[in-house]
Formats: sequence, C-alpha cells, structure tokens
Amino acid sequence: MAHIDLPEGLPGIVGPMTRYPDTEKPLNELAQVLLRGNQSTLSTGERELIATYVSAQNDCIFCQSAHGATAAHLLEGSYTTVEAVKKDFQSAPISDKLKALLVIAGKVQKGGRNVTEEDVAKAREHGATDRDIHDTVLISAAFCMFNRYVDGLATWTPEDPAIYDQIGGMLATVGYLDSIQRDQPEETTVG
Amino acid sequence: MAHIDLPEGLPGIVGPMTRYPDTEKPLNELAQVLLRGNQSTLSTGERELIATYVSAQNDCIFCQSAHGATAAHLLEGSYTTVEAVKKDFQSAPISDKLKALLVIAGKVQKGGRNVTEEDVAKAREHGATDRDIHDTVLISAAFCMFNRYVDGLATWTPEDPAIYDQIGGMLATVGYLDSIQRDQPEETTVG
Repeated sequence: MAHIDLPEGLPGIVGPMTRYPDTEKPLNELAQVLLRGNQSTLSTGERELIATYVSAQNDCIFCQSAHGATAAHLLEGSYTTVEAVKKDFQSAPISDKLKALLVIAGKVQKGGRNVTEEDVAKAREHGATDRDIHDTVLISAAFCMFNRYVDGLATWTPEDPAIYDQIGGMLATVGYLDSIQRDQPEETTVG
Repeated sequence: MAHIDLPEGLPGIVGPMTRYPDTEKPLNELAQVLLRGNQSTLSTGERELIATYVSAQNDCIFCQSAHGATAAHLLEGSYTTVEAVKKDFQSAPISDKLKALLVIAGKVQKGGRNVTEEDVAKAREHGATDRDIHDTVLISAAFCMFNRYVDGLATWTPEDPAIYDQIGGMLATVGYLDSIQRDQPEETTVG
C-alpha cells in the first residue's frame, strides 16, 4: 500500500502525478524535453536506454520496466537490446559512444562527483558532443529523482509485463505531455 | 573546469541552465512549484531546509550553500538554524513534525525504498499531512537530481559565503521563475 492516499489502479508515478497536478506539470515537461525534445543530439531510443539503465541501477522496478518497454518500442520492438544493456552494457549491441555515455550515467547515479575528466574524454573520443554529455548527466540525475519519487511513496508496481508493454507503446508514440494537454484545455486555447 | 563548455562566471546550476534554456524551463518551474507553490502545506523556509539538508547529505557544496542561504533569509536571517539542521537536525530548533519529515527525506536521499511505514506513521503522529509527506519525498528526490546535475558537470562552485548570501537573498524574494519571465516575454504576453 502506498504511503499516502493515491487514486486506485494507477501504476507507479501515474498515481502521485494524477493526485498532484501542480507538480505533475513540470515533471512531465521535464521528461518530454529530456526524452523527446528536438534539441538533443541523442536518439529517443538512446535516451530511453539511459533512463532504463539508471532506473535498473536504482532498483526501481516500475521505471526500469516502463522505460525499458518504451526503449524497446522505439528500437523497433527489441527487448533483447534493453535486457542486454541492463545486464552488461559493455557487451550489448549498442554504439561505443553510448557505452561511454552509460559509464557517465552510472557514475552520476552513484553521485555527481564520481564523473572524471577521463570518463568525459573517452566519450568525446567516440564522438560525444557537449549536448550528449549534458543530456546524459541530466537524464541520469532526473531518473535518480523519478525513481525516488515512485519508490519513496511506495506506489503500486504492476507485475504483468503486458501492462508495461502497453505503457511503453503509448510513451513511444505519444510522449509525456498528453495528460497535460488533455487535462488543461483552457491553457491550450488561450493563445 | 566544467566537463562541458559553459558561460564564464556563472555559479553552479546557473551555468548549464543558461547554456541550455530548453531544459532550464521545466527545471525552474519544478523548483518554483515545489519550493514556492501555494499548494504545499509546508512553509517556504521548511521546504528550503529540506532541500539544504538533502544537498548536504549529497555533499553538493553549491546547492547546500545556496539553499541554506535561502532558508536563512526566509527564516529571518537565521543561519544558526540552517547549520544546526545540517549538523544534527534532531537537536536543531525546529518542530517535531519537521524532524520526522527530515528522517523521511534522508531515507529518500539514500534510495526511495528505504522509507518505512513507521517513518510515515511517526510523521503523521506529529501532524504531517499527505501533502507534507508527498512534498518531502519529492523535494528530497528533486535535490538528488539538482545535486547530481551540478556536480556531474563539475560546474563552478564559488567559495565566498557572501556570494551565497546574495543568491539566497535573491531566491528568497524573487523565487525561481524570474529568468524565464525575463527571457521569454513573448510567452507572458500571448494570453
């Protein structure tokens, strides 16, 4: 049972987001700009893989399952790649650049000061830009927040993989702003 | 030196926020709603104390100094209370409710799953509401993000306490949305 009263039947972060729309709005906007924004030089699949890896390191079942499914949908249904990244990304079928960025993401997950100049230099050797490094650090940092929000409130974690596949399919196509656009029509019609 | 190219002379999170305005916007909006929003049942000083405590636990010098100074300004200039909370909050001159919430914040800082039903029950015994518990968990989680963003990029950390006192005075009076309102006048005039 969750630590606070939340709407019934809503999995993971969806419960507290629905209950508290004032904090939901910037949280969804942050997820949207980080994971779908067009300023990033990482693909949406790469960004969701970073989010999945960090959530797995934080042992957050809901987030690693939901974002893992999203990554799989963006990677054309390849759950194999997602599982390989979670198990041992150095041997996963991903680029050397993404492997170097996952090293940085893993350091940030343990604490920001762990990232070294050598970690950053290695990522640059494999073609990482400033924006790649910035987004990797912020995605890892943001999932250290989302994971703690989900687990710190003891929200409902479904066990059926079909539920996560459905969530992943939705997030892969619609993104993170849909609920805002649906719930606040008065804001979208003002301008 | 920072791990990526950032504007000169801007302390801590201000550098990457200025360089990357697309991610700055939701980050500032989240800080504003969490730390200044009128839906919270915690005072602004209490919320800044939670942010300061978590930043100290994460050993983020910039964030604990900037938000500690902000808390001091909101608590009518009392740096004594801020230092007492950072050193040993159980003996600090704060309410029993806030002490119980800081226990929860400290558990979330280490990982969301550490929060127990007993921690939550104790906070409720001292008058904590669902909203108090929600905001405590999310503030702690959010500063696990902000701290990692600041340190994961190795941003500039000033050493002069006067700089933090100035930042704290500004954040205590103006809040976190000023730069957005200043930089994007077209958005504030559309409606």
